[in-house]
Amino acid sequence: MYKAEYLKSFVKDVFSKMGCPDEDAQIIADVFIQAELRGLPSHGMLRLKDYFQLWQAKRINVKPNITVVHETPSTAVVDGDNAIGMVAAYRSMQIAIDKARQVGTGWVATRNSNHYGIAGYYAMMALKDDMIGISVTNANPLVAPTFSVQRMLGTNPLAVAIPAGKYRPFVADFSSTPISRGKLAVMEKKGLNCDWGYVQDKDGNPSQDPSILSKGGSMLTLGGDYEHGSHKGFCMAATIDIFSAVLSGANFGPFVPPSVAYLPVLDKKVGEGTGHFFGALRIDAFQPADQFKAKMDLWIETFKNAKPIPGKKVIIPGEPEFENEELLSREGIPLVPAIAKDVKEIADYFGVPFEIL
Amino acid sequence: MYKAEYLKSFVKDVFSKMGCPDEDAQIIADVFIQAELRGLPSHGMLRLKDYFQLWQAKRINVKPNITVVHETPSTAVVDGDNAIGMVAAYRSMQIAIDKARQVGTGWVATRNSNHYGIAGYYAMMALKDDMIGISVTNANPLVAPTFSVQRMLGTNPLAVAIPAGKYRPFVADFSSTPISRGKLAVMEKKGLNCDWGYVQDKDGNPSQDPSILSKGGSMLTLGGDYEHGSHKGFCMAATIDIFSAVLSGANFGPFVPPSVAYLPVLDKKVGEGTGHFFGALRIDAFQPADQFKAKMDLWIETFKNAKPIPGKKVIIPGEPEFENEELLSREGIPLVPAIAKDVKEIADYFGVPFEIL
Repeated sequence: MYKAEYLKSFVKDVFSKMGCPDEDAQIIADVFIQAELRGLPSHGMLRLKDYFQLWQAKRINVKPNITVVHETPSTAVVDGDNAIGMVAAYRSMQIAIDKARQVGTGWVATRNSNHYGIAGYYAMMALKDDMIGISVTNANPLVAPTFSVQRMLGTNPLAVAIPAGKYRPFVADFSSTPISRGKLAVMEKKGLNCDWGYVQDKDGNPSQDPSILSKGGSMLTLGGDYEHGSHKGFCMAATIDIFSAVLSGANFGPFVPPSVAYLPVLDKKVGEGTGHFFGALRIDAFQPADQFKAKMDLWIETFKNAKPIPGKKVIIPGEPEFENEELLSREGIPLVPAIAKDVKEIADYFGVPFEIL
Repeated sequence: MYKAEYLKSFVKDVFSKMGCPDEDAQIIADVFIQAELRGLPSHGMLRLKDYFQLWQAKRINVKPNITVVHETPSTAVVDGDNAIGMVAAYRSMQIAIDKARQVGTGWVATRNSNHYGIAGYYAMMALKDDMIGISVTNANPLVAPTFSVQRMLGTNPLAVAIPAGKYRPFVADFSSTPISRGKLAVMEKKGLNCDWGYVQDKDGNPSQDPSILSKGGSMLTLGGDYEHGSHKGFCMAATIDIFSAVLSGANFGPFVPPSVAYLPVLDKKVGEGTGHFFGALRIDAFQPADQFKAKMDLWIETFKNAKPIPGKKVIIPGEPEFENEELLSREGIPLVPAIAKDVKEIADYFGVPFEIL
């Protein structure tokens, strides 16, 4: 098991070696390790290789000039200058928070960015200032809208972080698909069939093959099929795509550039890079923060105490991730051997020490 | 078939007879008829009886003093003074639009309101000013969170209206459940079983009984079960509940008051009335409106032209409702005999002419 601080310091050194300014490397490392601690390893150390290869292919800018290209008191459009997604996202969310401080809320659409890791990280940045944070992003097209056989949308997640009082914050961080791409990959590696309602084949027939994406198939939107509301999952994914990309001037839908170097740059573009959208709402722009937090505590208690199905319990959004964070902060972060090996190769490339445990 | 104008004028007269100021009666009538035209009759003339009975029971205020109780440049909290939901919602959305005009975006949390009809109506109010509109509401508890046997949430809808150029606007208006309460009621009346994934019985077992709500059962959140992402539908419904009720000071979750007079007022309250939340974002707070609309046209074309499953087509959110509106505006609005009969009784009560066709 790796100590979180050990991995964070290592990741920071790797991105510094790629040429990132110190502060940027720190941000990237923090998002990486938060993904591990929160139990989302598909967005953690596993991804180091993807960023490394994008850097080798000169497809990401490690010294970006991130600028506000348009603004009003409560809004801004940020051009990420092809930055590593975490850096563009962190700066954008900071701007949203600053605007909320001034006029109650702040809303930032970001273009010309790249894969930004876990959506929840940026939403949670608002919490320390007694604000609600919101973060969405578009992503590589893997998902078919209802009645389409073509992959048009990413798994487009929505994260909302809301402060509470004596309880931990409410943090919803969820994709607009029934399960994540990462979970499909795990089933594929284990040679298992997946459940119905996750994917379809290239002709739009229901499928249980978790490797169907490599055969022209698609993931489905939340709801699974039309009869069970997949058009509502499509509404969610489409709205996130429009806020992230059309409002910002990034690439939308099928034109979102790949976040891995082994897929070629697309021929056609309709904007700049990948897009995100961020929001910050000052609690006391609505009511005194203490009063709100006491009410959130009551909300959380009410839902925690809902009568459960025998043997189960009602889970407050964010609760399992906080529990995971406490556990892994104490006991360390596990890395599977294949990932540790990839990480070691990158470490050796840069001459940064990394120990395989 | 009834002409839209005939029904609108009739509904206006009925609410005027209840004591609503002229302007308020006009708003209510417009929302009612929009629901019919957009193909959502479960929120149209069917509901007249509910409002009438709430009025008879003195449970709604037809002469409300709707006030802003807290504000910043981009936010407000509105107290609806127990108004008919449409009136409180319309005024709140107007405030959001006014604030967006000033500082780019406007966000209004509304408490002490009642059932507001179709969420999309208020989101669409922003379109004529080249703004994006957002509208959400909480509602009577009929829905169980993942792993709960208790009904804790309403079907909590989200509506987002986004202007386009040569195409009709993108209007997503969707509940956080696989199907609506109304569709369950239709299946029940027809004596049909419903599909799996919509409801559960009082012990949390999957059920196909569309009348299960009257036997202690619950509707499920979008996703249906945990394996298919019902916790994501729960995240959506919960976020809408918190924005609508905790930010505004309304009743949340299981404490939302019933929107029909035949259900008693709840013993416990944790706030005032039902809650809504509205947003307006000026397009040109992000980029020139014409440029955005041209890009939205490209977005719509791209998705309309996605390769479909044979015999199907990809539907842009809002498209079927606009087509329905055009059809019914031309050919008239049908009312089923049972509803026409209820309406006629109310007409006779007030001495307002109404013809059964």
